[in-house]
Amino acid sequence: MAEFDLIARIRARAASRDDVVLGIGDDGALLRMPPGRLLVVATDTLNAGVHFPEDTLPAAVGWKALAVNLSDLAAMGAVPAWCTLSLSLPEGDALWVERFLDGFLALAAEHGVALVGGDTTRGPLSVCVTVHGFVDEGRALRRAGARVGDDLWVSGTLGDAAAALSQWRAGGAAEASLRARLDRPTPRLALGQALAGIATTCIDVSDGLLADLGHLCSASGVGADVELDSLPASPALAALFTDETRHVLQAGGGDDYELCFTAAAAHADAVRAATEQAGTPVTRIGRIVGGGTVRALLSDGSAWAPPQHGYEHFR
Amino acid sequence: MAEFDLIARIRARAASRDDVVLGIGDDGALLRMPPGRLLVVATDTLNAGVHFPEDTLPAAVGWKALAVNLSDLAAMGAVPAWCTLSLSLPEGDALWVERFLDGFLALAAEHGVALVGGDTTRGPLSVCVTVHGFVDEGRALRRAGARVGDDLWVSGTLGDAAAALSQWRAGGAAEASLRARLDRPTPRLALGQALAGIATTCIDVSDGLLADLGHLCSASGVGADVELDSLPASPALAALFTDETRHVLQAGGGDDYELCFTAAAAHADAVRAATEQAGTPVTRIGRIVGGGTVRALLSDGSAWAPPQHGYEHFR
Repeated sequence: MAEFDLIARIRARAASRDDVVLGIGDDGALLRMPPGRLLVVATDTLNAGVHFPEDTLPAAVGWKALAVNLSDLAAMGAVPAWCTLSLSLPEGDALWVERFLDGFLALAAEHGVALVGGDTTRGPLSVCVTVHGFVDEGRALRRAGARVGDDLWVSGTLGDAAAALSQWRAGGAAEASLRARLDRPTPRLALGQALAGIATTCIDVSDGLLADLGHLCSASGVGADVELDSLPASPALAALFTDETRHVLQAGGGDDYELCFTAAAAHADAVRAATEQAGTPVTRIGRIVGGGTVRALLSDGSAWAPPQHGYEHFR
Repeated sequence: MAEFDLIARIRARAASRDDVVLGIGDDGALLRMPPGRLLVVATDTLNAGVHFPEDTLPAAVGWKALAVNLSDLAAMGAVPAWCTLSLSLPEGDALWVERFLDGFLALAAEHGVALVGGDTTRGPLSVCVTVHGFVDEGRALRRAGARVGDDLWVSGTLGDAAAALSQWRAGGAAEASLRARLDRPTPRLALGQALAGIATTCIDVSDGLLADLGHLCSASGVGADVELDSLPASPALAALFTDETRHVLQAGGGDDYELCFTAAAAHADAVRAATEQAGTPVTRIGRIVGGGTVRALLSDGSAWAPPQHGYEHFR
């Protein structure tokens, strides 16, 4: 099918918002910003075989492409508003696109995000999404700002997506609840918004806890001690893997899209109130220390040497 | 080289602006909008072998990836401000990236555009750029709004990029001035801004004049008569091709990134004043008519049947 028919299909299904003056169908979108707030912009691309297994269902590709971007807005404490979608497809497969939109637009609707533009091109399967949101100046969560003595927290559970990928790579189907975490991550938008003004820093866990925590510590000029045994695990992860493998998946696996954040120890009650407001559980997993090193500690206090530090695209 | 080293290199070279509160290096960028103006957003992806020949120099890929996006802002009459860059590379080739940035950042500097975020991932060579600009409400140029009797105009010259591609496909090196138009198109930003409030519609010519004019007419509910002999040609195009081939390249070739726009006949002097202000020549190439058909007319007034209508990615 022709590119313009594809765009017409996408346009017909995309919802709008009152602040969209002009959406899909022109050279650019015209958008009205709420006065006095900052615009937050993030962009991320997913490539087939790199960011998701080749057998991923199109609806999951659509969901995940938007979710990983909304996760960046969550990590800034932003309220999402608009997105654009640039879709490269090997062929103009209308059915594939419809299923892709099922996942993409379901997540967009859940968070009131309007798809306002983009393009469709021929090429290896690749999805580039740019998301836009708002935040009050001075309340945005950043990577810089952690202080020695701050508590270190993480939302939800860690390691499920990496466990699913590991099972899939071993040639078997992944356990269903783990695969669901790989395919349809949950951007923690309500939590990020509730933490604005409370947390001192925040980052979303995409490359792996220790790797992303390293970025946070580097931006803040601090180090961190992580208690490995405190890392939250799902029932499936705890049941299916040894402690040793679980630690690798939780500390280094990536693709979690949980929020890792810091807050003054005196604000622990405020953190708990924010997580109740957001309906997202959080766990205290360590603390910020001096120096520039991120250490993962075993229960006896000795340092754990991880076999890998996250996932780097060009290693 | 690792992804984070690549991002550090990009960050070190990117210029900033006063309205960038937080740029590259966090989960998202924080940007301050000028009060009372609309945000204009456009996004376009270039894939190797689809949108540029595989032998295109990396600096030209960088230039073109930003240029085609800025061209969309030009077609809206917008003033550009910020962009994001999502770069998929088969391998982490630092030298390639430096040369790519030479072209990308040269064009960004020319128009005061700050690179504020993005990502680098492993995958087939692909560049997704999203651009942001501002326009006063009510002054944005759209595709809808052309009226019967309006003059039809186009900026610069048409067909050079398609001519270069045709020479390249035939196995020879393209004539240098033609290849320069293919590799380094000029976004007509000053012209678009000068036409805001004067032109009734505007679109940039990326898919080919007749194809893009078709989108404009479709959005406006009108038709158009284009005088083929009036289409502006560069000296190289006029010297190297027969009239018949030249018409095909100019009317259907694409990749021109000129502005095609309409204005009331009574505003022809205002159009000429705007083009002088912008320093960009324009040519009157026809007029808007009733009905929904775009016709290309030969000098004897008979209709020309083009062998192709632009370039569709999924034909």
